[in-house]
Formats: sequence, C-alpha cells, structure tokens
Amino acid sequence: MNPEILLALENIVGSAYIFTDEATRKTYGHDETEDLSFPPHVVVKPANTEEVAQILRVSNTYKIPTTPIGARTGLSGGALSIYGGIGISMERFNQIIEIDEQNLQVTTQPGVITQVLREAVAEKGLFYPVDPSSMGSCFIGGNIAENSGGARALKYGVTKDYVLNLEVVLPTGDIIWTGANTLKNSTGYNLTQLMVGSEGTLGIVTKIVLKLLPQNKHNVLLLVPFYKAEQACEAVSAIFRAGIIPSALEFMERDAIDWTLKFVDGLNVEVKDNVQAHLLIEVDGNYPEILMQEAEQILAVVEQFEIDEVLFADTEEQKNALWKMRRSLAEAVKANSIYKEEDTVVPRYELPKLLKGIKEIGSKYGFQSVCYGHAGDGNLHVNIIKGNMTDDNWKTEVPKGIREIFELTVGLKGTLSGEHGIGLVQKNYMDIAFSKVHLELMERIKAIFDPNNVLNPGKIFPDGND
Amino acid sequence: MNPEILLALENIVGSAYIFTDEATRKTYGHDETEDLSFPPHVVVKPANTEEVAQILRVSNTYKIPTTPIGARTGLSGGALSIYGGIGISMERFNQIIEIDEQNLQVTTQPGVITQVLREAVAEKGLFYPVDPSSMGSCFIGGNIAENSGGARALKYGVTKDYVLNLEVVLPTGDIIWTGANTLKNSTGYNLTQLMVGSEGTLGIVTKIVLKLLPQNKHNVLLLVPFYKAEQACEAVSAIFRAGIIPSALEFMERDAIDWTLKFVDGLNVEVKDNVQAHLLIEVDGNYPEILMQEAEQILAVVEQFEIDEVLFADTEEQKNALWKMRRSLAEAVKANSIYKEEDTVVPRYELPKLLKGIKEIGSKYGFQSVCYGHAGDGNLHVNIIKGNMTDDNWKTEVPKGIREIFELTVGLKGTLSGEHGIGLVQKNYMDIAFSKVHLELMERIKAIFDPNNVLNPGKIFPDGND
Repeated sequence: MNPEILLALENIVGSAYIFTDEATRKTYGHDETEDLSFPPHVVVKPANTEEVAQILRVSNTYKIPTTPIGARTGLSGGALSIYGGIGISMERFNQIIEIDEQNLQVTTQPGVITQVLREAVAEKGLFYPVDPSSMGSCFIGGNIAENSGGARALKYGVTKDYVLNLEVVLPTGDIIWTGANTLKNSTGYNLTQLMVGSEGTLGIVTKIVLKLLPQNKHNVLLLVPFYKAEQACEAVSAIFRAGIIPSALEFMERDAIDWTLKFVDGLNVEVKDNVQAHLLIEVDGNYPEILMQEAEQILAVVEQFEIDEVLFADTEEQKNALWKMRRSLAEAVKANSIYKEEDTVVPRYELPKLLKGIKEIGSKYGFQSVCYGHAGDGNLHVNIIKGNMTDDNWKTEVPKGIREIFELTVGLKGTLSGEHGIGLVQKNYMDIAFSKVHLELMERIKAIFDPNNVLNPGKIFPDGND
Repeated sequence: MNPEILLALENIVGSAYIFTDEATRKTYGHDETEDLSFPPHVVVKPANTEEVAQILRVSNTYKIPTTPIGARTGLSGGALSIYGGIGISMERFNQIIEIDEQNLQVTTQPGVITQVLREAVAEKGLFYPVDPSSMGSCFIGGNIAENSGGARALKYGVTKDYVLNLEVVLPTGDIIWTGANTLKNSTGYNLTQLMVGSEGTLGIVTKIVLKLLPQNKHNVLLLVPFYKAEQACEAVSAIFRAGIIPSALEFMERDAIDWTLKFVDGLNVEVKDNVQAHLLIEVDGNYPEILMQEAEQILAVVEQFEIDEVLFADTEEQKNALWKMRRSLAEAVKANSIYKEEDTVVPRYELPKLLKGIKEIGSKYGFQSVCYGHAGDGNLHVNIIKGNMTDDNWKTEVPKGIREIFELTVGLKGTLSGEHGIGLVQKNYMDIAFSKVHLELMERIKAIFDPNNVLNPGKIFPDGND
C-alpha cells in the first residue's frame, strides 16, 4: 500500500493503532465462515466517530476498498477484506454510553460484546432479548450489520426490532443520525431499517440506540425427544396454533446432538437410540404458575406426536447445560468435518417440507447434512458435511445442491438468509430470491450511499453486479 | 388533460372506472387534513396489480403527477393530488386474499378497511394489533404508507412491525415483492421497511403479507383522573419502570374530553371540575387473575400522584364507551374550531417537558392547544385551535409556533411525526429533524425509484427540494 496513504491513516488514528504486520493482517482477515482468509493490507483501529469519518475520506480520495470489522464471528464472510485495502476494526468502540432507565433505552458503541450489553442492562432490571448463539463474543455492531436473530426471536423479534436510532458514518465520510429515539416514527424514509442488515455496505455504525424491555423474572425449559425429525418440525407450528408463544423453540437433529455430547464435557444429557430430533422449548414471563400452565399446554400438543420422555429442566444448572448444548452445536459440527452452513428460513409451517427436501437434495448430490436452528421462526441452519466426499464433488456438486436448497426455500415463500446475512458466500445465489429489477434497485441504493464503491465492496451482490 | 392520455387510461381500467367529473374529482381531492382540497384531473380505479403497473407506465410516458389514494383518512395530506394529474383510487383492492392459520399470517389487498381485517382474523382466533383511531374507515394500505400506529403500539408495535412482505408496483411500472414471508430475513437491503412509511412516494403497494399473533382473551381498562396534566405525563413512564407494559396508555387533556362529551351522546363519563387530564390504561392477556394483579400494580403507581377516583371499567359496555370517547376526540376537536394537528413524538419520559413547552410556546404566539395521544409511546397529538385568533395571526404566528414545537421535540430526541406522516403539511419543517446531507440522501433514494418524479410528487421533501 502507498506510503502516502499509510501516513494519512497514521495521522488519523496515531501510530499505536495502525498495523501492517502479517500476523495482525491475518487475524483480521478471517471470521467464522468456513476456512476463508482475506486479510486487509492495513488494519486501523479508530477511537471515535470523527476518526472513522476521516478514514473514509481517505478511502474515497485514494479509492481504496475499506471493510468494517467487528468481532469476526460472522458466518457469511461479511467482514472479510476480499480486495485487501483498509480494514477498520471497531474494537475500541467498546463503551456502553448510557442505560436510560426512564425511557427503557440503551445507547451504546458498536464494539460492545452483545452479552456484556445484555448483562449490563439486566443489572438495572432491563432486558435486551436478542441472543445470537455467538453472543458471548460477537459485537452489537455486527448484530446491526447482519440483523442478527437468535433463539428468542420467535417471541421477541430480531435486532431490527430493537434499533431506534443509529449514528452512521456514510461511505463519503458524512455523519448522520438515521432516526429519533422514539418508539414511533413516520418522518421521512426509514434509513434506520435500511442500515440494519446492510452488512456494512452502506455506512459504518458508530452509536446505537436500542429499545429495552422490563426483565422477565421466570422461565421454564423443556427438552422433547421425537422419534421422527419431520414430526418435530410439525409440532413447531402446532404449538403456536394452540395460542402459545414460547420464548424459544429450537430444533436439533440427532447427529448434531451426538457430536455435541462428544465435543462438550459434562453435559449429562442422555439420548435414546431411536430418537431422531429434539425440540428445546422455553416459555418465560413474570408468573411461575402461568408458565407451568403453558408448559402443560405445550406437553398436550407434543404428546400428539411420537415422542420419548420429556425432560423438564427445573434447576438453573440443568437449564444452563441444555442451552450450552444448543449453543455448542455449531462448533461441534465444525470440529467434526469441513462443512458449509446455509441459513435457510421459511414460514414455520413449511419446516417439515424444507427438512424433507434438504435430505432429498443431499441424496441427489451425495452429501450428508446436519440441521438445527430456530424452528420457532422457521430458521433452519443446514450444515453440509464434507465427510469423505471427494474434493471434486465438494467443489462442483455441493454448490448445485445449495442452489436447489435455496430454490426450495424461496418456493416455500422463504429466503436465503434468516440471520447470517449474504456477505460473500451466498451472494451468487441472490438471483434466486430477487429479480434483475430488484437487484438493480438495491445496487443503485448502494451507489447513492457509496459513489466510489469503497465500503465493503464485493458483498451481497452477485459477481459481475458489484 | 390530454384526450390521448385519458384514452390510454380508459383502455387500462375500462370506461366504468375512469372519472373526470367535478364531484368525483373533488371527493378524491381531500382527506382528513384540515380543510385542504387538491383534486386530481382524473380519477382511475384499477382492479389489479397489472392495471396499476400500466397506469404508471402511462404516467412515465407523459410525465404526469400520479397520486395513490386510499380511504382519505390521512392527517398530513399525503394522498392529495397537489399538482393534479392522475389520482389512483385503491378502493377496488378490497379482498383479504388468505388468512394463513398455520403460519399466523394474513395476505391482503391494500384497500381492505383495517377494522374489517382485524375482525376477519379475530374470527380465526388471531390478532392484528395495530389500531389507528381511524381503523373503522382507513385502509390497511394507507397504514403501510404512513406507518400507522394507534393505541396498542406501546405493547405491540406499529404497522412496520407486522409487515413481512409487500408486492409493490414501482413508479416505473415494474413489479417486485420486497421480501419474504418470514419472521427473520437478512437477505439484501430491507426494501420492505423502506417502503413502509414512504407515503406512497416510492411505489404503490398492491399486496401485503402481515404477521399475526394469537388473540389475547382478556383485558382490564382503567380511567385515571389527574389534578395536574404534567403529573399524568409523569405517571406514564413510572408505570413502565414498575415493570408493566400496558396494552394501551392514552393521555387526554381536560378540554378534549369536555368537547367530546358534548359532541358524542350518551358516553356517561363524569369529569370533576379540578381534573386537568386523564390517563386511559389497558392491560391485556390470557389470565384474568394476572391482569387484576397488574391493574393493582398500576394503581399503586398512579396513587403516588395527585389523582381523583379511578374508574375500573368491567363491562364491555363501559369499555366501549371509554374507547369511543378516546376515538372521538379528534372529530370533537375538529367540530369545535378550525385547527391544525401536529403529531409530535418523544421518548416517553420527556412527555412532561414536551407538554409544558407546548403550552409556553402557545402563550408566546397566542394560541390555545388541546393535547391528547398515545402517551405510552411518547406520541402526543397537539391540536392548535384557531378559536378567535385573527386570520393574520393564524397564518403568520402559528407556523412560527409549530416550528418551535418541532424544535422542542427534536431537542428532546424525538421527531416531527409519530404516526401521521409528513405528507404535505409538515414537509417544510423537515430541516429541523434532518441535515442537508440526510435529506439529499432521501431525495436521491426517491430519484432512484422514481426517475421522472411522477409518483406522489410534492410530499415529504421541503419546497424547493422536490
């Protein structure tokens, strides 16, 4: 990289916060997406909004690809510097600015770890419900970029449902607040929601105002083993139709659990031989007696299917073990084999059709898949396992299978990604979900925000379109 | 209007659905915004998406201003044909297409009356919570255009929180579905949310997929009279801080209630002399015993303020009377005097400061105001009463006062409109909420969607900017 540019960047962030050594570049060149590595040429760590704005002005002056980088827990390669250039690490934006107990809001910088934020507001009796599986390490800013969901989305919604207002540095270096700190807003176009889920391509978020709820005091957790995986999927919509909105409703295929029990010590969960899948079901609220009633209603629903004995987790220890198992699935699968993860989402009643279709497509193209996910909102993570597939088949057959899986999801009125984003790895499937007119509209929006295409180029839009 | 254009339109919709007579034009030239009248040159009533697309192609060919028109209940003049041209009435889009009980969704055309939709899904045990005061006559499509709220938004959210997917005819005549029928979606830019609240300037919505909830079975309604209006505002955030989320929390100033009791017969509500304001508070849920507990917690909170005797409405008749009173306030105020209504919104704890500021600004510029609204979400409707003000002062002083009111709301981290939209009457205050860069960004988005500026021109953006 041109020394003039490096000097300009150093003048902005100071010499302690600019890195060109290989180790640092490599660290900031990967996330949790497969085994991809795309290091930036230089890593900068700005301290405040104005520094981010100055960096983006440099990016525009020299037309350099510039990628915002969070905690690198992403699953679609959204934060990878695929054309090198400048990587802007947001890690120094790690302060919670204000917990507003009067208005039930929190104002935070984007580099705060989601769980840290959740715990800080919980100490004040407040609740930030969005809990992606990576919440122990991901940044809240990354959650905004990808519109992250998690296990509680079926009752509480996803990231977008909590974002009131954003301070954003536009790719040109201009700074705006997208909205207002209000629950209602009908004032101009909703740039707040345009920014959420735009995967760091329309601006860099530097402050975030989130809505909070009062903390719920109690919950009940059930683990229901099903003899047939498709019946587990069928039970999902049956529970909602009974008038209950659980706070979590997770689906886990047998293999995922088996691998996790081997991968994580001391989980102490027993799975019988003929069980194909589990549902992990939580209800929450302020009144324990009501939760017990709801748990019984849920039992009455699931007992209409072929199930094994239901586990009621009544101690915190048991609950934590079950959640730890659920949250470890991805890592366990990853440890087991090379894999690709697809983040399919459909209306929840279509889940059995989706699961059945995925298995058929796998048979057709010769791959095994392990599925788990947030079944309550129709969000199924499909892990395609390399296992002992040949490298050739992995490269040629699997993409065809993935394309068919996405065609299936879209045919079921679903879409490509529920909560991981499109990023790098799904971008060439976008034509399945969107017409040419629609994609061009989105690309023209990108061009308005980022006339020189400096901010996170090469993401979201299919090759040849970015 | 050029006969060639009229013929082209007639060929699209058929001679029975095109109108150029003065009476029809006049009817479609006003809504509920003050006494404004801006008739289109021609009214067309298309029957389906393809006809809307064809009309917009004509609009582009001849560069004719074209305004989508719903039920004309709007309060910001958003559906007025301020440059004449083509008025597209959406009234024939009046079918509910499918109530999907498996996925808790409804697909509807935009010309369905909101209350009709609510009742149709309620018959299946489902709940569409958004209830603007005009729900007995407004269209669900208009609710999308303005991102309508209503009394239940504090617990259940506003229109945008229920919209999953939209079929939209773009101003160019292209047709897209904006998203997918899923609860989670991280697939490309969120054009669904860009469309919601864009006031018919970015496209014409022709099909709508909404999320539904299971119907709540019970509710409790309280009417709390306060001796001091500002204390009523203070009580609002105190209730939330006690950990309760009411399903409605409405603020009504004394004058509004007095005028309504005169305007509507048989309401049978008694108001003592020294009461300045009321809160109407509802909690809902499935368990009556829990609701009674919550009502008692609310009582404990409001009793910390100077209040008169609280009315518990236990019969359906009493509840309906109280809601009828609340929903009649706007009409009663309107019947009383020429007025202007502003739709201010702030974080809810700032309400007392907002109310106090509005009264001070009124004194300064010589106008009386009557305030009521959805206090639970900080949304206060400010009715500025002409009364015996001179026409001169009405024209010159009131706009200055309104500007100060909006400066106050923005200073309190609120904004111009909570649920009515900017439309025509608020557009020249947009500079208070948005920087030049921000407004230009929105205008450039408009230009991408609508390169010839044919669709609903003259709305949202300040004069000189559209």
